[in-house]
Order: sequence, then structure tokens, then C-alpha cells
Amino acid sequence: MKLEKGQKLLFIGDSITDCDRAKPEGEGNFGALGTGYVSQVDALLQSVYPELGIRVVNKGINGHTVRNLKARWETDVIKPSPDWLVIMIGINDVWRQYDLPTQPEKHVQLKEYKETLEELVTVTKPKLNGGLVLMTPFYLETNEADAMRKTMDEYGRAVKEIAEKYNCQIVDTQAAFNEQLKELYPATLAWDRVHPSAAGHMTITRAFLKTVGFDWNKA
Amino acid sequence: MKLEKGQKLLFIGDSITDCDRAKPEGEGNFGALGTGYVSQVDALLQSVYPELGIRVVNKGINGHTVRNLKARWETDVIKPSPDWLVIMIGINDVWRQYDLPTQPEKHVQLKEYKETLEELVTVTKPKLNGGLVLMTPFYLETNEADAMRKTMDEYGRAVKEIAEKYNCQIVDTQAAFNEQLKELYPATLAWDRVHPSAAGHMTITRAFLKTVGFDWNKA
Amino acid sequence: MKLEKGQKLLFIGDSITDCDRAKPEGEGNFGALGTGYVSQVDALLQSVYPELGIRVVNKGINGHTVRNLKARWETDVIKPSPDWLVIMIGINDVWRQYDLPTQPEKHVQLKEYKETLEELVTVTKPKLNGGLVLMTPFYLETNEADAMRKTMDEYGRAVKEIAEKYNCQIVDTQAAFNEQLKELYPATLAWDRVHPSAAGHMTITRAFLKTVGFDWNKA
Amino acid sequence: MKLEKGQKLLFIGDSITDCDRAKPEGEGNFGALGTGYVSQVDALLQSVYPELGIRVVNKGINGHTVRNLKARWETDVIKPSPDWLVIMIGINDVWRQYDLPTQPEKHVQLKEYKETLEELVTVTKPKLNGGLVLMTPFYLETNEADAMRKTMDEYGRAVKEIAEKYNCQIVDTQAAFNEQLKELYPATLAWDRVHPSAAGHMTITRAFLKTVGFDWNKA
Amino acid sequence: MKLEKGQKLLFIGDSITDCDRAKPEGEGNFGALGTGYVSQVDALLQSVYPELGIRVVNKGINGHTVRNLKARWETDVIKPSPDWLVIMIGINDVWRQYDLPTQPEKHVQLKEYKETLEELVTVTKPKLNGGLVLMTPFYLETNEADAMRKTMDEYGRAVKEIAEKYNCQIVDTQAAFNEQLKELYPATLAWDRVHPSAAGHMTITRAFLKTVGFDWNKA
Amino acid sequence: MKLEKGQKLLFIGDSITDCDRAKPEGEGNFGALGTGYVSQVDALLQSVYPELGIRVVNKGINGHTVRNLKARWETDVIKPSPDWLVIMIGINDVWRQYDLPTQPEKHVQLKEYKETLEELVTVTKPKLNGGLVLMTPFYLETNEADAMRKTMDEYGRAVKEIAEKYNCQIVDTQAAFNEQLKELYPATLAWDRVHPSAAGHMTITRAFLKTVGFDWNKA
Amino acid sequence: MKLEKGQKLLFIGDSITDCDRAKPEGEGNFGALGTGYVSQVDALLQSVYPELGIRVVNKGINGHTVRNLKARWETDVIKPSPDWLVIMIGINDVWRQYDLPTQPEKHVQLKEYKETLEELVTVTKPKLNGGLVLMTPFYLETNEADAMRKTMDEYGRAVKEIAEKYNCQIVDTQAAFNEQLKELYPATLAWDRVHPSAAGHMTITRAFLKTVGFDWNKA
Amino acid sequence: MKLEKGQKLLFIGDSITDCDRAKPEGEGNFGALGTGYVSQVDALLQSVYPELGIRVVNKGINGHTVRNLKARWETDVIKPSPDWLVIMIGINDVWRQYDLPTQPEKHVQLKEYKETLEELVTVTKPKLNGGLVLMTPFYLETNEADAMRKTMDEYGRAVKEIAEKYNCQIVDTQAAFNEQLKELYPATLAWDRVHPSAAGHMTITRAFLKTVGFDWNKA
Repeated sequence: MKLEKGQKLLFIGDSITDCDRAKPEGEGNFGALGTGYVSQVDALLQSVYPELGIRVVNKGINGHTVRNLKARWETDVIKPSPDWLVIMIGINDVWRQYDLPTQPEKHVQLKEYKETLEELVTVTKPKLNGGLVLMTPFYLETNEADAMRKTMDEYGRAVKEIAEKYNCQIVDTQAAFNEQLKELYPATLAWDRVHPSAAGHMTITRAFLKTVGFDWNKA
Repeated sequence: MKLEKGQKLLFIGDSITDCDRAKPEGEGNFGALGTGYVSQVDALLQSVYPELGIRVVNKGINGHTVRNLKARWETDVIKPSPDWLVIMIGINDVWRQYDLPTQPEKHVQLKEYKETLEELVTVTKPKLNGGLVLMTPFYLETNEADAMRKTMDEYGRAVKEIAEKYNCQIVDTQAAFNEQLKELYPATLAWDRVHPSAAGHMTITRAFLKTVGFDWNKA
Repeated sequence: MKLEKGQKLLFIGDSITDCDRAKPEGEGNFGALGTGYVSQVDALLQSVYPELGIRVVNKGINGHTVRNLKARWETDVIKPSPDWLVIMIGINDVWRQYDLPTQPEKHVQLKEYKETLEELVTVTKPKLNGGLVLMTPFYLETNEADAMRKTMDEYGRAVKEIAEKYNCQIVDTQAAFNEQLKELYPATLAWDRVHPSAAGHMTITRAFLKTVGFDWNKA
Repeated sequence: MKLEKGQKLLFIGDSITDCDRAKPEGEGNFGALGTGYVSQVDALLQSVYPELGIRVVNKGINGHTVRNLKARWETDVIKPSPDWLVIMIGINDVWRQYDLPTQPEKHVQLKEYKETLEELVTVTKPKLNGGLVLMTPFYLETNEADAMRKTMDEYGRAVKEIAEKYNCQIVDTQAAFNEQLKELYPATLAWDRVHPSAAGHMTITRAFLKTVGFDWNKA
Repeated sequence: MKLEKGQKLLFIGDSITDCDRAKPEGEGNFGALGTGYVSQVDALLQSVYPELGIRVVNKGINGHTVRNLKARWETDVIKPSPDWLVIMIGINDVWRQYDLPTQPEKHVQLKEYKETLEELVTVTKPKLNGGLVLMTPFYLETNEADAMRKTMDEYGRAVKEIAEKYNCQIVDTQAAFNEQLKELYPATLAWDRVHPSAAGHMTITRAFLKTVGFDWNKA
Repeated sequence: MKLEKGQKLLFIGDSITDCDRAKPEGEGNFGALGTGYVSQVDALLQSVYPELGIRVVNKGINGHTVRNLKARWETDVIKPSPDWLVIMIGINDVWRQYDLPTQPEKHVQLKEYKETLEELVTVTKPKLNGGLVLMTPFYLETNEADAMRKTMDEYGRAVKEIAEKYNCQIVDTQAAFNEQLKELYPATLAWDRVHPSAAGHMTITRAFLKTVGFDWNKA
Repeated sequence: MKLEKGQKLLFIGDSITDCDRAKPEGEGNFGALGTGYVSQVDALLQSVYPELGIRVVNKGINGHTVRNLKARWETDVIKPSPDWLVIMIGINDVWRQYDLPTQPEKHVQLKEYKETLEELVTVTKPKLNGGLVLMTPFYLETNEADAMRKTMDEYGRAVKEIAEKYNCQIVDTQAAFNEQLKELYPATLAWDRVHPSAAGHMTITRAFLKTVGFDWNKA
Repeated sequence: MKLEKGQKLLFIGDSITDCDRAKPEGEGNFGALGTGYVSQVDALLQSVYPELGIRVVNKGINGHTVRNLKARWETDVIKPSPDWLVIMIGINDVWRQYDLPTQPEKHVQLKEYKETLEELVTVTKPKLNGGLVLMTPFYLETNEADAMRKTMDEYGRAVKEIAEKYNCQIVDTQAAFNEQLKELYPATLAWDRVHPSAAGHMTITRAFLKTVGFDWNKA
């Protein structure tokens, strides 16, 4: 298990991360972590590793792109000084190109996306005692020739390149969902192919926890 | 893994099971399984074993005792004809003795509790293709000399005796929580020592899934 | 223009037709026709052909399949005795197979779908002074190899076969959307690929109105 | 078709234009364009001319007069720099003289109305790549001797004079409604003779679209 | 003053009478009489003639026609056995012909209107110790050539004929409003020309009170 | 009739005046004048004297004392520059001494009350083209020996003295109510002996209108 | 202390007793006893005499008269078989005569009041193991010549006569309030002179508890 | 009785004190004192000692620790200049250590707690004409070996030491509850062992009132 006693684990991202978390804190009792994968991760950590006392914080905000993350990076990431940071961003960067095609000012193109994410990684990684985990954005579409899926895959590749270049942990959420989608039609997991059910969130959760060495069978 | 392709897995119980599930169905998309351990079990099954297509149904109702379960057994258990049945009941049977001491008609004493549960088990077990799982009631109190904890332990022992007598699967939720409570003070898991946080529900979830042979590391 | 002065034009279907119409009447002022294609059809008829005084009635209900239509046929179609009847049904018949795969009792298979629709057509057509229009169900997915799109196409073919056999008017909504989807990504028209924006509804509206000989340029 | 690929088409006006649009943006998905003629125009453009990708923006605000438009002209018209601008204003300028006769500070008299509108036109027209469309205010009253109808007609004439003087496109909404009112009593279209039903809005929509060369029968 | 000590004065009608009265009683404190002319009449009676203790009851219901009154006559008029009865009905009988022209089943034609009202009068008048007051329906439109105003005037004439034939008190509300409309444009009194402001209701109130001999200047 | 064509008549006071009026304007359609005596006065003026076009404005605010009036005098009285001003204040000045006896900072004693009111009168009267009407505060208690009634009477006397000294119109609301209370028990008019029913408000209305020469029987 | 271990103490009455209690049970945790004197009595009993385990039940219902009590006596008093019964009724029997003077069917005159109360007492007293306590109705008015106070005193005398005749405990709530009203003006305790503040309820509470021998200073 | 005529008695604390009091004032009618012990104290004072006119003020705020009290001391204690001050604080100082163990910045350790409380006492005591009452924090847990109970007892001891050192009145709420808990299981008084029912609040109330010499039996 890579997470150590007393460490702070902060997640930042968009609506997939947010899931109605308490704002602005993003931590505490009574559902403060929201109803998505962050809450599932916390539940599994507190249930299996209660002795570690990992402090989980959720800083996701609905609709955000990497451009929005940059604007609140100081407040929401640097100032809380986490030991571990997990970033999953990019779905809205891509989606707006497809659902609001006439509003280019809301589109974050690949170049800006990659440069901004890279900047955030380089600024932050040295400050982390634990580690930096990058999770790819995803799209619950099995047809790889689909236009939006293709674009999402490009953004996902950018994330992987940054992870490799800066030696970050990488979680390929698209790959994890692809396995699940072999058995389940996308509409079972998400009517809009973006916002997963609890079963979809658990796929993210499990992919993340495998990356940090979580052991389900720990006594 | 003991659950087989296409089987129906039905949970019945009180508020710990209910957790704001859709009524009366207790299944479907959009949070129909509620926000407790039943939803977590489903999320893990659909995420790790999507090929099995397990049908999870939640028939918990807030505040119910075994007396209430009996009254709706035909409608909520026999008629839906599940393959697997999971029963967790007894917390309110005990709790009312302690929070409403002047209202004896709301107390389900041990004798009635055990006889009723046994009757439900004997009537139902032969109809199940899969299995019958009994989960003990629990109380998030570490002091074994506490009056309500002592009573709850007696009810838990009755569940175990029935499980043994009729060869049911048993999940000792109290034992599972006891491990977690070695590290966490009860107020972290539940302000009222009864209704757990997501982290508490996950302890039930994991205890149940171990019993049915769930493999987190399945490829 | 095939619609004649004083005729009653009744639409029946699912949520695409319903769109928050007034219930149970389905007609009147103040948005009683809902916010979908039925309201657009009415708006165009009253604007371009006010002298005809066409009476438009909306009997769509969210989530309905052809099985539900049959159950309310007497009340909602026979009793109001329309001159023209327009049926668009089948999306939920198919969708439930893909978003609730474990609940087969909610799936209306092709055979039942076709037989039921045929029965409704044969019973009703003789009673209509005007005409009977069948509109195919649709799915806003451009990949014809997509599982749900393939199934939807099969149901659409069944509608066309019935239309041909009984000499009904046919509106191929899928074909109409396919044209629009050459230019617009599905997410622009409908986040869930089923419930269209106003721009999507207008595509149904125009396809329907062309079928009944509506003339936009009428003086 | 006068509208060209990628152009921005901005509507400004009062409650007839507003119709519960998203504020302050006035564009986007999920009903952001409101429920009136602007939404209908957009629906017809995206349905018939999806390849043009026209960007429609709604800047109507309930209760506004030309005096209010002037106050927000910089923010709501100049700054968004549309290619096409459509102005329909004047109903409240007149109406307040009739429903609040004792509050003269809320009345915009004809002289101020015409001078202000002319000023807005002269300032803006040079900035438009596409065109400037003036739509007359209207009153759903068939009696031309009615006091408020007479005043409204005077304001409508002012709009036409400005359109002619500055070579703008003109849409005579009163004339369009007059045709419809030959068949329908005003109360069918609008209980208050001002806020039209969907069928009334469609009359505005069709009058506007004819002006810009929209072709309903385009393949 | 024709009203005598301790008499019950019951008003029945449509939305002009209803005005959000308490249902089903239609009397009592805390605004139980609604916010329209019935409340004003009561306020003036209790203020100027408190010693009479007149009991005022409001049985108006929104949207009702004379056909609806007949259906509830036994319950709402005969059973409460008033001393005085005031009927104002007919606006919806006429209005539906103009705002819902395609729904003839909602139109109460003049013949049915007159016969029904006459039947109600003949049945009830003998039971009244005080008197029966008929108030004409009205339309806040000054143009006597307006189609709906013309129809309303015909219905008003029918009321007057019945009043004369059966020797009832008559209140010509249309005539009273005509005076007020010489000075005020209809939109000042009612945006829809039907539902008056407090100032419009007071015109009904004063017309009624004059009929029963109310003396404002009573010491 | 002392009110002249086109004059503005402004009422200021506490909750008896306020009655849920539109804020901050205090005038307009759709119930902007509230539901109390101000609305009744306006209704009677517009109904009987529509040709005068009197502009009625309501500036009452719940809970206010004369101290509060002074604080907003510039904004709510001087700036709107009425022709006629009507002041009814003092109930809360007295009431707080009886319902919150331990909070002396909320009590406005007689001396402060009289001096403040006098100051407001002297500042304002010269600016009024029409007239200044002072209405006494009142208490719906018939027992003149009641402590609060006695205090209220003292405040009422102060109002009368100021009216006499500065030659203002005076409306003795207490006297008007005393007549009504000979017949009706206080609880019929107001459960708290302060906030009157519509019948109570009408007593204020009639007392005021008599003062300004209103003629109910005007043709 | 007259209340004995394990006894059930049931209160029945009107809104003074009700105070938003849980319905229909009238007992339990979480404010089920309402916010009035019943809750205060319970709080003092459970705080000072926790060893007695007195079961307190609240069966008050807003607006009820003795006529209403009779109608629900079997359900709300006989069936729950209390050991002690406390009745406080009569305020509405009197009040309706004063706030709704024109509705005599809502007035319960003294004769009916006394006979009905006497009937309830004679039927019930033999069934009570503990005792029967009658509490007089009251009116927070210090002027004994006040009409409603006089009537209330008559009803109170009737209660005392019944108490004496049948040897019941009597609580003179009016007398208790009279002491408090020597120091506090009625408006401090109750704006409507009927529904007391917490301080007023405590006066009832203390008067009741003195009657049953409660000892505040018990160790 | 130590409280004297006209004195102001101010309570400050956390949610046990707050109980939904009016904010920011914390005094007045209509439940402004909340629903907890402060309201009970006031009710008993106004009921038994109405002639004293004690002014009770509630400045409790949910969730506050002694650190929060210090931050608002000037505004909420010094500025209102009470004669008597009652402080009950510390529950959240302790609780956060047990329910949010991973958020140390929310824990107020014993040293800070004691020093801060001592500072507040030394600053304030000289300004009080009446007296300063310290109430210990409490935990409704009977097991003295329970971790949180042990910590709470330490904080309680600190309060007692300060009380002794500075000669304040002391109320040992834990001791008072311990008596009640001999008979009642904690869940009867408070599901979370912290927020008492009305019966629990009364135990605080009685303990406080005994300290200031309140006499229940005063005539």
C-alpha cells in the first residue's frame, strides 16, 4: 500500500469528481465527499485501512475544464497542501466541442489542454510527499470511430504522455471502462455516456485503488 | 464466486438496507437501490462481474422489525422469487426497548424475534435456487457491557443459531465492525451508533461479498 | 393539404410525444400540448392554416411502450374519436433491453411489438375519417453497427411493413434525423441520444408536416 | 438564404423575445433560448440548415422599453459582436401608457422612442457583417380604432421609417398577425393581447424567416 | 337597506366570484371570502352595518359555466339555504367559444345558458326569504362590435329577461363597467379583459350594494 | 372632493399600511398596493372617480415606528414629492412597551413620538400641494381602562394636537373603530386586536375617504 | 407524588394541548409531544422522576370543541386506556361565539358543553386506575367585564362543578394565569390572548404538576 | 433568588444553547430563544417570577468551540453588557477529535481550551453586576472508560478549576445527567449522545436554576 498513515489525498476534477460534494471544503462527515468515486475510495480506505487515517478531500466542480482548474489551483490544490494529488480532467474540454459546436470560446483545444495540464503538473509535483496520479478522461462509447470518442482518446493520450514524462502514476479510466462495456451497453452505465452510475464510478474507484496498491483481502 | 449468471439477489431489512431506495420496486437505474450497502454491493458486482448480469433488488424499509418483515413477506420476498435472499433485521427490535422504554408494544422480545425469523427462514429456504444469507444486527458500541450492545449480541447469537440449524450463510456484521472500531471511534462511523457512513456500509458490503466468494482482483 | 377543416388530429406515443403536456386532456391553451413536436405541429397549423381550425390532441405518456398504449387505447384513442391518428412508439420497447438488461419483464420484444402495433392499427384504421400516420421510433446514433441502433432499425422496419400492409402514411423519423446528424454530433441534439432539443423535435415536425401536405409558403 | 455559415444571429427585445431564456448568456442547450420565437427560429435553422452552424443568441428581457435597451446596448449588443441583429421593441413603450396611466415616468413617448431606436441603429449597423432586421411592435387587437392599437401602429410606422431610411430589413409583425386574426379571435392567441401562444410566436418566426430567405422545402 | 338582521347572503359564480376563497366552506375569517368583490361587499357590510350581522358566503369556482353551477346547485345553494342569493355566471360560457374555438363541448350556447339559468331561478326563488339578485356577465371591451363583446351582451340580455320574467333584482355589471371604461383603458382594469383589479371589483361591489339599498353615509 | 385631477396621494405607516405591498415602489398593477386599506381607498377612487386619475402610493413597512419613518423620510416621502400625504404611525411605538417589556430600546416613548412626528410634519407640510392627513393609531380594545388602550389613546391625542397645531386633516381611526366595536367583539375584527380583517380596514378606508370629501353616490 | 411507576398519562384538548404534536400517535421521541405544556410536563417528569417511567400521550387537536372530543372519544381516550386522563377543553366552544358570530352551528353553548363534558367524565372515570384531572379553559384577558372573558369564566365554573360532583382533580388555569397577568400584559404572553408563549404554557404546566404532587426539589 | 429585578441574563454556547434561536438578536417573542434549555429557563422565570422582568438572551451558535466564542466575544457578550453571563462550551472542542479524527485543525486541545476560557472569564467577570456561571460540557455516555467521555470529563474538570479560581458559579451538567442516566438509557435522551430531548434539556435547566436560587414553590 503506497498511501501512508496520516496522509492527505486530494482529488480534483469536474462533475465526475464533484457529485454533489460539500462546498467549499470537500471533506467531512454526512456525505461531504459526494456520491461518486471519491466517496467510494474513501469508504474502502476507511473500511479496510482504518488504522491509516487517510484524509480524503474532494475538489471537483461540475462543468470544469483544465482552464478552470488552473484558475483555482492556488486555492484548491496548493493551499491545502495534500500529500497525494489525483487529477481527472478533460471531459468538458472535449464535450463542449460536440454539444455546443457554435461556441468556440468554450472549447479547450488539445494544445491548450496539454500545455495547461503539464504546467499544473510541473508546478505541483515537487510539493507532494506522496505522489501525483493522473487519470485519463473517458467517454462511455464503444465505437472507437465515433468522433467524440476519438477526440477523447487523443486527450487521454496527452495525459499518458505527461504522466510518463513526469513520472506520475497513471490510471487509464477509458481502458477500465472498455472492459466493462464489453458486457454492458453504455446506456446501462450512463444515459449521457458521461456521468456514470454507482457501478460505473466503482470502475474508476477500483482502477485508482489498484494503482496505489490497495489490498481488498487485507485482514 | 457463488452467484451465477442471471440470478436475482434480494436484500430485505430495515433502514440500514433501505437508505432511500425506490419504492415499491427497489431496483432500476438512477439510484433505485438507495445509498447504502445494497448499492455498494451492486456497484461492485456490475463493475467486477458485468458478465454475470446479477439482478439486485432492495426491499429494506426504515424502522422495520422482524414483525414487519413477516407482514410483507409474501409481497416482498415470495412473490419476486429471488434466487438469493439476504436478511438483516433486528436493530429496531432491540432499539425500541432502549429509546422508547415506555412503549412495550413496539418492543420485539428475543423469543418472538427468533421464532419469527426462524419461521421466515423455514418457509423460504426451499424456494431459493441460490442461497440464503443471514446477517446479524449490529450496534456500533465497543463497550460489550453496554446494555443495548449486550441485547444486540443476544439477538446476533439467535441469528447465528438459526443460520447453523438451517445451514444458511452467515455474515457477522458486528464482528466486522468490531475490527473497524478498534481504529475508529463510533462517532466517526455513525452519530447514533446505528446508521453508518459510506465507510461503515462498505464494511457490511465487504463482509457480505467475502461470504459469496467475490474476487476483487478478478481480471 | 390533406387535413381538412374542423378535423381532430390526435398524437399518441411516449415521452417524445408527451413533453409535459396537460393530463389527462392533452389539449387546450397555456402549453397544454407540451413543449415537443406536437406543440410545434400545432403552432405551424394554427399559424399557416388558421382557417382550418384543426384540433390537435396530445396523448403521449412518458416511458410508455406499445404494451402500455394497448392498455389505454380505448380511453385515449377510440373514445376521443379523432379524424387523424399519429402513432410513434417503440423507443422504450427497445431502450429497456439496453438500460435495464436484467429486467426482462420490461422488455417488449420485436414479435410482441409488431403484433400489438398491428392489432391497434387494424382496430382503429376503419374508424378514421382522415388518415393514420405511423412514425418510426428512432435513436440519435450515427453508427449503424451500434447494438441499440440496430435493434431500433429493426423496430422501424416493422413499423414500415405495417404501414405498407395497411396502407398507412409513414414518417421515417430515423431517416430524417440521419440527415441532420450528418452535420451535428448526437450530443448537440440530445444528451441521451433519445430526447431531442427543440431543433430535434423540429425535424420530426417537418417530416410529419411534409407527409400531410403542409405548405410553408401558403399565402 | 441570406444567413451564412458560422454567423452569429442576435435577437434583442422585451418579454416577447425573452420567454424565460437563460440569463445572462442567452444561448446554449437545455432551453437556453427560451420558449418563444427565438427558440423556434433556432429550431428551424438547426433542423433545415444544420450545415450552416448559425449561432443564435437571445438578449430579450421582460418589460423592457427602448430606453432600457439603450442602457444595456454596449453589454448586450456591441460586445457580443453579432453578424446579424434583430430588434423588436416598443410594446412596453406603448403599453405602460395604457395600463399604468398615472405613472408618466414609465411611458416612452413616440419622439423618444423613435430617436432612441434611430440612434441604436446608426451606431450599430456599420458593425454588422450580416444585416440588421427591425421588427415592428404589435398588438393582438383587430379594431384599428382601439386607442392602444392606434398608438402601436404609430410606433410601428416609426420602425418602418427607420428601416427605410437606413436600409434595414423590416418585418411587419402586426401585418402578419392581422392575417391570422382574420380567422382566430385574439383571446385564442393571447389572453392579454400581447404575449402570444406558440401559434402566435410561430407567426413571428415565419415572418422573420421569410425575410432572411429561409427555405422550408430545402432538401 | 333591504338586507335584514341575521340574513345569509350567498354568492355563486365563476372565477370573478371565487378569487381564491376558502373551499369548500366559502366563509370564515382569515380571507375565507377571497380577494374579490364578495370580500369587498362583506367588508362594507360589516363596517357600515355591523349591527345586522349579515352572513356572507362565497361559492364561486374558477372556470365554471352555468352547466357546472347546475351540477353543484343542490350542494352549494339549496343545502346552505341562504336568505339572499346572488348569481353571476356566463363569462366562461362565452369565453370558451373564443379562446378554445376547436372544443365545442366546452361551449355553452345561448339556448342552453338561458334555459339552465331559468331552471335554477325557478327552482330556487321560492325558497328565498330575502331576494334573488342576477348580475350580468361582462367583458371589459369598449368596442361593441367586437365579436366576444357582442356575444357577451346577448348573454347579458338573457339574464335581464329572466330577471324581469321572475321579478328578480338585476345588476347590470356591463353597464357599470362601461362608465368606468370611458375613463380607463381596459388594460388598466384587467390584462385579459375579464379578471378585474381591485378597482374593477369595486365597480361590481358598488353596483350590487346600490341594488340592495346600502347607504355609505349611514351614521 | 378635495383630491384633484392627476394628484399623487402617498400613504406611509406600519404593517396596517404595508399589507404585503410591492417593495420598494409601492404602486402599480397586480396588487402592488397590498391588501389593506390603501388598496381599498385606491379601488374606490378608481371606481368612482376614474376621471381624476389619482396616483396612489403605499410606503408602509411592517413593524415600523415613527423612529423608522424618520430614517426613511427623505427617500420615501420627500423624494417622491406627493401632493397629498397620509401618515398613520404609533401602534408599534406603543405595542413594544407591552409585548416586549424587557427591551426598552425598542420602546418609543410619548415624548420622542410626538417630537419626531411634529418634526416630520413641519418639514413636509409646506411641500404639499394637496394636504396632509394624520390618522391616529388605534387598538381594537373596548375597555378604555386597559393599559395598552390607555397608552394608545395618549398617542392618539398627541396626533390630534399636532393636527390642530399645524392645521392638518385628522382621521380618528380609534373613534371609527369604537363604533364598529359596539356591535362586533374585537376578535371578529382582529385576533391580535391590531391587524384588522378586510372589514376592519374598510372602517379606516371610509373614515379617510369621508375626510377628503369622497362621494359614494356620485353618478 | 400521585403518579405511579409505569402509568400512562393522557392529555386531550384543543390547540393549547396539540401544539404540533405527532399525529395520530401523540407520543414518541423527536418532539412527538409537541411544543406546549404537555411536552413541558413530560420533560419535568422524565427529568425529575426518570425512575417512574411515566408514559405521556398527547391527543390534542387544533380547533376542537367538546363536541369534537366526544366524536373521537372511543378512539383517542377509551382505546388507549390511560391510567390518568387530563381534559382541557372549551376555549373554541366559547371563541367561535366571538370571532365567528354569524355561524351559530360552530358555537357550543354552555348547556351542550356541560352535558357533553359530564357525559365524557361519567363514562371514563370508572376506567381510570390513576385519576381524572379537569383543567378549566382560560382567556388571557384581565378585564373580568370583557364579554368573552365572562363567558369563559362561566364555562370554567361548569368545569369546576363537574369536577366537584364527580370528585375529579381540578386545575384552575384561569386563576394561575391571573397571577401571572398581574405582572405581564396579555400581549407578552399571547398576541391573540389564547395561544400562550412557552412562559404561558409553563404556568399551565406548573399548575398541573402541583395538582399531582410533583416535587421540584426531589433529590 | 439571586437574579434581581430588571437584570439581563445572557447565555452563550454551542448547539445545545442555540436550538434554532432567532439570529442575530437571540431574544424576543415567537420562539426567539429557541427550543432548548434557554427557553425553558426563561419560561420558568417568567412564569414564577414575572415581577422580576428578567431579560433572557441566547447567543448560542451551532458547532461552536471556545475558539469561536473568543472570536465573537466582543460582539455577543461585551457589547450587550449582561448582568449575568452563563457559558457552556467544550462539546465540539472534544467531539471533533472523535468524529473528524483526520482534521486536526478542527480539534481544540485541552490546553487551548482552558487558556481561552480562562481569558474570557478574566476579561468579563469584572464587568458583570450579577454573576458568572460556568456550566461543564457533557456527554450522555455512562461508561466512564469510553474515550470521548474520558476526554469530556477532563474538559469538565478544567471548567471547574477555572470556576473555583475565579470564584464563579459552577453547574456540573455531567453530574446532573449521570443521575438521570441511572434510569434512562442514553438513546432515550439523545440519539447521538449529545443533543438532548426536552427531558434532557430540563435537566440542564433545573441544574442551572438551582444554582441561582430559583424557588419552584414560590407563591
